[in-house]
Amino acid sequence: MVEKPVKSTPFNILAMRGEDRIRDHIEDMHPADLADVLRDIPVRDTSRILSLLPVTDQAAVFEHMDIGAQVELARFLKRSELARIITEMAGDDRTDLFNKLSPDEQRTLMPALSQAEREDIRRLSAYPEGTAGAIMTSDYALLSPDLTAEEALKKLRLEAPDKETIYRSYVVDKERRLLGAVSLKSLIIADPDTPIEDIMDGNSPFLLVTDTQEDVAKQIAKYDTLALPVLDDEERLVGIVTHDDAMDVIEQEATEDFHKMAAAGKLITSVRDATIAVLYRQRVTWLLLLVFVNIFTGAGIAFYEDVIAAHLALLFFLPLLIASSGNAGSQSATLMIRAMATGDVEMKDWGSLLGREFFVSLIIGLTMAFAVAFLGLFRGGYEIALVVAFSMCAVIIVGSVIGMSLPFLMAKFKMDPAAASTPLVTSIADVLGVLIYLGIASAILDMPSLPVE
Amino acid sequence: MVEKPVKSTPFNILAMRGEDRIRDHIEDMHPADLADVLRDIPVRDTSRILSLLPVTDQAAVFEHMDIGAQVELARFLKRSELARIITEMAGDDRTDLFNKLSPDEQRTLMPALSQAEREDIRRLSAYPEGTAGAIMTSDYALLSPDLTAEEALKKLRLEAPDKETIYRSYVVDKERRLLGAVSLKSLIIADPDTPIEDIMDGNSPFLLVTDTQEDVAKQIAKYDTLALPVLDDEERLVGIVTHDDAMDVIEQEATEDFHKMAAAGKLITSVRDATIAVLYRQRVTWLLLLVFVNIFTGAGIAFYEDVIAAHLALLFFLPLLIASSGNAGSQSATLMIRAMATGDVEMKDWGSLLGREFFVSLIIGLTMAFAVAFLGLFRGGYEIALVVAFSMCAVIIVGSVIGMSLPFLMAKFKMDPAAASTPLVTSIADVLGVLIYLGIASAILDMPSLPVE
Repeated sequence: MVEKPVKSTPFNILAMRGEDRIRDHIEDMHPADLADVLRDIPVRDTSRILSLLPVTDQAAVFEHMDIGAQVELARFLKRSELARIITEMAGDDRTDLFNKLSPDEQRTLMPALSQAEREDIRRLSAYPEGTAGAIMTSDYALLSPDLTAEEALKKLRLEAPDKETIYRSYVVDKERRLLGAVSLKSLIIADPDTPIEDIMDGNSPFLLVTDTQEDVAKQIAKYDTLALPVLDDEERLVGIVTHDDAMDVIEQEATEDFHKMAAAGKLITSVRDATIAVLYRQRVTWLLLLVFVNIFTGAGIAFYEDVIAAHLALLFFLPLLIASSGNAGSQSATLMIRAMATGDVEMKDWGSLLGREFFVSLIIGLTMAFAVAFLGLFRGGYEIALVVAFSMCAVIIVGSVIGMSLPFLMAKFKMDPAAASTPLVTSIADVLGVLIYLGIASAILDMPSLPVE
Repeated sequence: MVEKPVKSTPFNILAMRGEDRIRDHIEDMHPADLADVLRDIPVRDTSRILSLLPVTDQAAVFEHMDIGAQVELARFLKRSELARIITEMAGDDRTDLFNKLSPDEQRTLMPALSQAEREDIRRLSAYPEGTAGAIMTSDYALLSPDLTAEEALKKLRLEAPDKETIYRSYVVDKERRLLGAVSLKSLIIADPDTPIEDIMDGNSPFLLVTDTQEDVAKQIAKYDTLALPVLDDEERLVGIVTHDDAMDVIEQEATEDFHKMAAAGKLITSVRDATIAVLYRQRVTWLLLLVFVNIFTGAGIAFYEDVIAAHLALLFFLPLLIASSGNAGSQSATLMIRAMATGDVEMKDWGSLLGREFFVSLIIGLTMAFAVAFLGLFRGGYEIALVVAFSMCAVIIVGSVIGMSLPFLMAKFKMDPAAASTPLVTSIADVLGVLIYLGIASAILDMPSLPVE
């Protein structure tokens, strides 16, 4: 009988006694697993445990930690220790950490780094956050077009230890302009004497330094590639974005969209580590703004106060109708926002989707109307049932069409479609729901020709 | 002056005349770009244009198309053409396509495939959807532990054309049990005579065939790796999941969470291609369920009908208060759901987060109370202002705490935290909001000791 494979689970590292025992235990761990273990223990212990490992492993663990934990640990370490670790880190991770330090800390650290690393940090920091330039790394392998496959392999073998990836190398001319990309696989398969020029893919997809993070994520996912080269506006190669960074970006972008959709402000990197002040600021702004939208709903109700006072049974259905309108709207908005984010739907699809949305919401509305008509009959009689059923169908259609269109409208005005947040859609649907419901109610219930209950 | 780099943009391929001109144009295109171009044209033209390319390129384009478009095209092609393309596709993509065909179509296609491919499809289809087994591919490179680095490289060179990746190979014993993983980079750097055993990473992270898609995405993102091996319950290697498939899974998981959060039902792969029947079914179920929750809100209002009838000014603030409660709740719920999905927050964090949530919502509540107190004073006088301010603070706290806790409660009962959808949170917050508001109103406004307006 074979033992079932068991995955390593977090354990209480602080309970282990003796440096040698701890070292034995952590030496063979994947840096990501060790980073997990170190996540919940005090920074003093983290530093002590890390120091048992060689510095390259320390750097690998660092790269797998949350940026918040990295900063905390960086502040705790001696300057020389930190400099050694930072030197071993990948260019992009190093720059991210550096940028999170205070200007004072940056000034203190700089002299402890080598000239090359200082240059690298300066160059990568120059690009605004959220662009390809800010995500890219400079640890890529360069080849010149006149090398043979054999020569190229030899060069890569020498450079491999220092590069983030050698599985895709880039071919540039003397001005560092991108000529093509070549995969290690094609180099290995090729006849050793073939010149790189004949092996490389001269139409490699690429990014521009100014591309947004969102574009980067879309392109890497689209081309299913290990890395994409990043060019400046003179076609010169300035960096690469690798698949693992792209994966982080995809996750970040989705998180940002989630937060925007709940009107919870811009990206909060870690909810767990966010301070009360940050959470307060991010959340209160939107809540206050939405209050203003909701004042219109209140005004709508106040406008029809007389109708309500005369038919208090209407009140029972008020939350149900406005909630259904809002819910239908947030369903549509979410489906569209996500479809636009993944590239499933584009601006030009609006027209055709609108027709379908209208039809879908009509049949949803009729189903819902049928359901609440019974409730209306039971609670308030025939007239109320009529009012409620009509209103339900109308608010579902209006809510859905608005929810579906608002993301397109946002995109039209160069805003992020996710800014059509569910609370915003819900609030707008609320206003219209109240006006439709009470409007229909006052029309039907005040009609003298209808038989009086 | 150098020309600025320009990315290829979709163009009207149908306007091009002459097969040779079209072939010249598409030959050098990236398969993903060509798939984009073919996306919006009739299937007859897609088939005609694809047939201009060699079959390996056709397969690559196929792999980059939406699964819906793949199926449409597969149905249009002759059986022999389809079989040729399917043979060239990666194992996982091939199986996905095969599984989308009708049983009849599958039966017709099977005899046209080789024995090896039939076996492969049968084996991969055996795993339930949404598991590592269903995502994995079987095109990986195997090494035995007694090879030297040089021998291993030679073997990989021969196998490379048929494998999805040779950048990570797996070392297994005679029973196919996983001994370790070895990167091409380490093979290239190593001394040619070193045995694989000494180069491989014997503690490679791995997946189990039964792991959920969600786990797969988390693990691949965690380990920043090109591929993870997949083991059966006897530790035998049965497949690998590659980074590009993991990226698709991360995107799918996020999409599923988005849809769940808007109570729009389970994953709709493509909103653009979804039929009206699917959209109707997915959306109406939740809307109807939520109506029942909202009936309680209606009942709450009906319960306090007298208070409202006596103080119609209260109506003005009703939507504002219940919307604020719902919005605060959906903010908290979304922040938690996303944090739990990305692993930022875990079950055990609930206690500490609850305390912080209470404090954050208290200060948000006080701010909001302050804002609406003025409105209350203006619309209804001193007493109404008091009622509205008190209620606002209370509903914000209650909404936030519920929104924050519901995802944990879902997880506790082994449900997806994302099932704590914003509409559900909003609806629950609505009920409580109404009860709190009108409860406070009836307490304060009916108190005879307070000065009468």
